[in-house]
Amino acid sequence: MTSAAAAKIVSKRDPKAVEAAIALLAAAFGNRLVTSQAVREQHGNTLTWIANQPPDAVVFPQNTKDVQEIVRICATHRVPVIAFGTGTSLEGHVNAPFGGVSVDFRDMNKVLAVHAEDLDCVIEPGITRKALNEHLRDQGLFFPIDPGADASLGGMAATRASGTNAVRYGTMKDNVLAMKVVLANGELMTTSRRAKKSSSGYDLTRLMIGSEGTLGIITELTLKLSGIPEAIASGVCPFPSVEACCTATILTIQSGIPVARIELLDALQIKASNAYSKLTLPEVPMLFVEFHGTQASVVEQSQRFGEIAKELGGGPFDWATRPEDRSRLWQARHDAYHAGRRLRPGSQAFATDVCVPISRLAECVAATQRDIAELKLIAPIIGHVGDGNFHLTLLVDMDDRDEVKRANILMERLVELALAMDGTCTGEHGVGQGKMKYLLAEHGAPALAAMAALKRALDPHNIMNPGKIVALSQESAT
Amino acid sequence: MTSAAAAKIVSKRDPKAVEAAIALLAAAFGNRLVTSQAVREQHGNTLTWIANQPPDAVVFPQNTKDVQEIVRICATHRVPVIAFGTGTSLEGHVNAPFGGVSVDFRDMNKVLAVHAEDLDCVIEPGITRKALNEHLRDQGLFFPIDPGADASLGGMAATRASGTNAVRYGTMKDNVLAMKVVLANGELMTTSRRAKKSSSGYDLTRLMIGSEGTLGIITELTLKLSGIPEAIASGVCPFPSVEACCTATILTIQSGIPVARIELLDALQIKASNAYSKLTLPEVPMLFVEFHGTQASVVEQSQRFGEIAKELGGGPFDWATRPEDRSRLWQARHDAYHAGRRLRPGSQAFATDVCVPISRLAECVAATQRDIAELKLIAPIIGHVGDGNFHLTLLVDMDDRDEVKRANILMERLVELALAMDGTCTGEHGVGQGKMKYLLAEHGAPALAAMAALKRALDPHNIMNPGKIVALSQESAT
Repeated sequence: MTSAAAAKIVSKRDPKAVEAAIALLAAAFGNRLVTSQAVREQHGNTLTWIANQPPDAVVFPQNTKDVQEIVRICATHRVPVIAFGTGTSLEGHVNAPFGGVSVDFRDMNKVLAVHAEDLDCVIEPGITRKALNEHLRDQGLFFPIDPGADASLGGMAATRASGTNAVRYGTMKDNVLAMKVVLANGELMTTSRRAKKSSSGYDLTRLMIGSEGTLGIITELTLKLSGIPEAIASGVCPFPSVEACCTATILTIQSGIPVARIELLDALQIKASNAYSKLTLPEVPMLFVEFHGTQASVVEQSQRFGEIAKELGGGPFDWATRPEDRSRLWQARHDAYHAGRRLRPGSQAFATDVCVPISRLAECVAATQRDIAELKLIAPIIGHVGDGNFHLTLLVDMDDRDEVKRANILMERLVELALAMDGTCTGEHGVGQGKMKYLLAEHGAPALAAMAALKRALDPHNIMNPGKIVALSQESAT
Repeated sequence: MTSAAAAKIVSKRDPKAVEAAIALLAAAFGNRLVTSQAVREQHGNTLTWIANQPPDAVVFPQNTKDVQEIVRICATHRVPVIAFGTGTSLEGHVNAPFGGVSVDFRDMNKVLAVHAEDLDCVIEPGITRKALNEHLRDQGLFFPIDPGADASLGGMAATRASGTNAVRYGTMKDNVLAMKVVLANGELMTTSRRAKKSSSGYDLTRLMIGSEGTLGIITELTLKLSGIPEAIASGVCPFPSVEACCTATILTIQSGIPVARIELLDALQIKASNAYSKLTLPEVPMLFVEFHGTQASVVEQSQRFGEIAKELGGGPFDWATRPEDRSRLWQARHDAYHAGRRLRPGSQAFATDVCVPISRLAECVAATQRDIAELKLIAPIIGHVGDGNFHLTLLVDMDDRDEVKRANILMERLVELALAMDGTCTGEHGVGQGKMKYLLAEHGAPALAAMAALKRALDPHNIMNPGKIVALSQESAT
């Protein structure tokens, strides 16, 4: 959507309607409806370079019925509704380009049930992944999906998040059994049952996962859980090049080693992480790996991986099974984004990710490193390489217009390259506002038209997080 | 949809339009367009009790462009289009209640590419699972999804099929990376890229999987492949009761044993399989199990399973790693449906399946066995119990009206019971015509309305396999 078209839609929205909706919400929710500038800005995009577009108001529901009431009020007045978890999305997902009401799930953070025998649990969307795992630990269970941030589960489902464990446990699409979703008309839809599989009708669960709040608002999730493995071994392994890291990853997966995590950090990222996380790793490309299984099987897996690494000139592969050693390592990995930002204090981070077939990964990463050098930019690389997915943390001086321009060139080239390799413009961050411009090239006109048709079918007045993923034409947005 | 309403829609379809479409198809496809009664009847439902409703014509496309042309001709004349794979679906999926054109993918059965490094392949939809695995074997790869029949991959995707390996490898929804789909307007949509994961827009792949040809026609699939395990161990284990089988299954999964297959056969099914497959198993409830991994890990897994079985009064657990022993066992398992039918020659089979949370499985199976006895019916039970999914093969004398009535009562009770346990009316067979009546109870009105809205959005003239999954109102079907 061009900004002119966006402006037109905004101008068509009636400020009096917004006022009326806010008045009704204030009457219904009292001090759980907030309109202060500071709180509104906290609910616009915060983590990346995308400009902050605050909503007109923020409301804090306490249960599904509250959410239904909020949506009904907004629907009546044609006011946008934007679901908000922890605000850690990276592509402007929570911005309010057309104003509207941000629905903050802070207070809907309960675990409603844990079915240990069935390896599932039922939760409210506001609970974060760390809080959930804290709750589950005593029962020997965990939820494996771990994006860098301590995100809310509702947000993770909405953005089809994944993380370091995805190579073994899949992404959010693989680990949500069912959801309750408030639709654009305020009705409450149950997407599926608690059975582990079903062939009963359209896959509404998967349709909602990754829809970024544009088709409905998630108010409850039934998640698949995994048993905490009997044994975990993890370690770091240096390699002579990024290519060698990628080749080792391919061989590991091809040889059937059920690796639980296999993460690339390039030399610059290792430098950043050494400084930030007080590690003393050699500043060369590294794989951080982890194996889950029985005592015997993690030893076997670790040894096999060590052999693969050695063949490729990597190693030594130091691995440990002590929880404190492992925790330090993976905390450093999860802090990689913040570590990267410290490389250049005062800079703005352009965090972006792509995903390609794993056979093209080495080529894609190496070409990107050349582009970074050629464009004189600073951008450590980290990757969930078992999935062919990697991230750049571009550190940009926003006052240097030429550098900003070069950063944009790099991001365009990265996506072009990934698409040319039959990859995707985003492996796990999502589309939000930042990547809408790439969808036509990635999906083609018929798929994009289908997405628009689905959006119109479920949200005919375009009130659910408008201006994200699919740009509806003005006609259909009114 | 009531049959009166259906009849009305049929009557609204213009026989001259069908004639015109067939004339155009004949001109375009020559002798690849067939209208003989015998061939038409072969393309209606054949495997179950659901009445045969033949299409008006059958056409055999050779490539995606052919399919686009067929759909365009049918769309112009508002004539139904029904995709056909091997005709082994069990709920009347391929019937033509409103007439129309069956699109038989017999000739579109090529493997277009195998990307061994990426563990994926690109295929045409008409290839069957056995033919695909034959093709892949030399490369050390396999496609794990194995419904009982040697179904086509297109049909398996369309019905969200699974099978014995699903407990470890997932269902079709987990093993399709991308598809090409001809939409109701004849346009060709690519649902996704070959990257292993993506957060780029709505999940069109999963929307199409399980949509049974009602939203579009699959003309190409990119499938995830798995490496053939270094070692496979499998065997049979008798148990004192069906409940003990189910408890053993729960404990196996809870203890993190990555079981590849865990299948229940009740005593009656064992009797049937002994006779049909020339086995000499004791006629008690049995688990057929299989473990994949390294030599060391399959031994470890087998031993652990054996211990669990023993604790529950089961065993001895005889397991083997010789391919010929394993093949015989699993062939018998795959032939269970045919073996069951032999129990009562001349009877009609009502094959049905439900899926419940695994904690409720023992209760569900035991209650169903009581219902079978109470209703004086013959129905062996087999189940993919690791998923909480089980099947009845009800053997019914169709000339005995009272027995047919009792068989219907049993099927209703089974679904009611499964839904009361937060289960689904079908774990893997799909909805077709046979299970449409259960969808409202299972999903609720908002979800069913959402499904209808999605159907209308992508198929506004209701030409794609009409009368399956979602009953559109007459207004929207014209």
